[in-house]
Amino acid sequence: MNIDLSINIDLARKILTRFIRSEVTRAGFSRAVIGLSGGIDSAVSCALAAEALGPENVLGVRMPYRTSSPDSLIDAEKTAACLKIPMQTFDITPMVDPLINHETDLSKNRKGNIMARARMIVLYDRSEEFKGLVIGTSNKTEILLGYTTMWGDMAAAINPVGDLYKTQLRQLAAALELPQSVLEKPPSADLWIGQTDEAELGLTYAEVDRLLYLLIDQRYTPEDCVEAGFDRAYVDKVLTRVRRNQFKRMMPPIAKLSNRTIGYDFLYLRDWGT
Amino acid sequence: MNIDLSINIDLARKILTRFIRSEVTRAGFSRAVIGLSGGIDSAVSCALAAEALGPENVLGVRMPYRTSSPDSLIDAEKTAACLKIPMQTFDITPMVDPLINHETDLSKNRKGNIMARARMIVLYDRSEEFKGLVIGTSNKTEILLGYTTMWGDMAAAINPVGDLYKTQLRQLAAALELPQSVLEKPPSADLWIGQTDEAELGLTYAEVDRLLYLLIDQRYTPEDCVEAGFDRAYVDKVLTRVRRNQFKRMMPPIAKLSNRTIGYDFLYLRDWGT
Repeated sequence: MNIDLSINIDLARKILTRFIRSEVTRAGFSRAVIGLSGGIDSAVSCALAAEALGPENVLGVRMPYRTSSPDSLIDAEKTAACLKIPMQTFDITPMVDPLINHETDLSKNRKGNIMARARMIVLYDRSEEFKGLVIGTSNKTEILLGYTTMWGDMAAAINPVGDLYKTQLRQLAAALELPQSVLEKPPSADLWIGQTDEAELGLTYAEVDRLLYLLIDQRYTPEDCVEAGFDRAYVDKVLTRVRRNQFKRMMPPIAKLSNRTIGYDFLYLRDWGT
Repeated sequence: MNIDLSINIDLARKILTRFIRSEVTRAGFSRAVIGLSGGIDSAVSCALAAEALGPENVLGVRMPYRTSSPDSLIDAEKTAACLKIPMQTFDITPMVDPLINHETDLSKNRKGNIMARARMIVLYDRSEEFKGLVIGTSNKTEILLGYTTMWGDMAAAINPVGDLYKTQLRQLAAALELPQSVLEKPPSADLWIGQTDEAELGLTYAEVDRLLYLLIDQRYTPEDCVEAGFDRAYVDKVLTRVRRNQFKRMMPPIAKLSNRTIGYDFLYLRDWGT
């Protein structure tokens, strides 16, 4: 079955740069701050922000941990140089080690979550200093699969790439001025040595994106997906992941007591009628 | 004008303990983790959780910073003792000082945000260890006025007290088994020495709660509120705060590109129809 994930690159680029410009302006800002991991997602967010706001108004922040790959640091630097944006570096090791070393044998996941959240703290602090909005870099595949750290890498003021599957984000990346090494390397959260997204998730972006596209965008039932050629167990596994991680895509639920509760009946500014 | 903020305490207590029990169970957990500041909000959340899940299943975590008031630590301990819940203490000083000392003369706000977010990291890490959901402690007044740190104290899995104005939370607190000193002391985020909520906000909870109740719960227009006896400038000031802080009450907006975008058209599990 032919599942077409190709996007109109020029249109996407236009929409996303306009989104950044209008959201940043609306919030009373003119600058942006982005965590530069050396990966493709943050490079694309950075490139779009630089195009939208001017490169001098986008601060890229590298936040290595002791075990981060040196290649990540180099790729992040190349990205910043390529886009002509200012760059800062802050080593999170002294921030996270007091917690990580507090217990022996902390799991990789717990360490990874601590690091992702420490980076959020640094980024939001740089945001106050640079007077720029924090721009998120989570793509649609990651957010749906919950392959993110809540209050960590998913924490941002706005997210320009959250409606692009990883496969689609790569199409857009290829059209932008980005270093070849960033475009080509295997996706990794770089939270521990040798980590790659696809090995950790136990699936490939190429395949899971096609399935997610059918389930979400095309509103296929799981049965439709099996008929379209996907393995039943695979469909169930992905479905379960999306379902189990719904909590990461919403604000903490508040117990309803009054007739107007935040998150339920009190949602938008337009509610105010002024 | 008579504005009645009194709540049915028994009913609220029943609804909130049921909320905690059902949300915690639904998420596949049976325990909870709560940051114990020594203040009334976290004490109430803790008391409700202890009632809902059994005291042994609620972990109170004290997370002092070097400059935290010793009274806060004592009050937190009294609360835990009163409720018969286990308690842990983790000093966040070594975690936050590397960032705070990175620059000279960081503003009080920036320091406060760093601390609030570091506490979130510790709490979520304890959550993985204790296998308990993180229970939030932000009240309706704070959330509406944006008197919270995004991804910091507002970060939680569920929030039982978010639909109670501070004044209402105090009514509930008085009915619970809590230490007298916790019930009586002036509200403070204790992020720096001598800080109190009311001095920092430049308003009293008693007055602002009455105004918020009219604006939100009773859907009064600003003009109605002035007619009801509130000062025009005061109404505008509060309104502006609520409006400006709307961003803290929502997930980061995602730029819409597809026909099914997370946060817009793809919202709930029930969307899945399975």
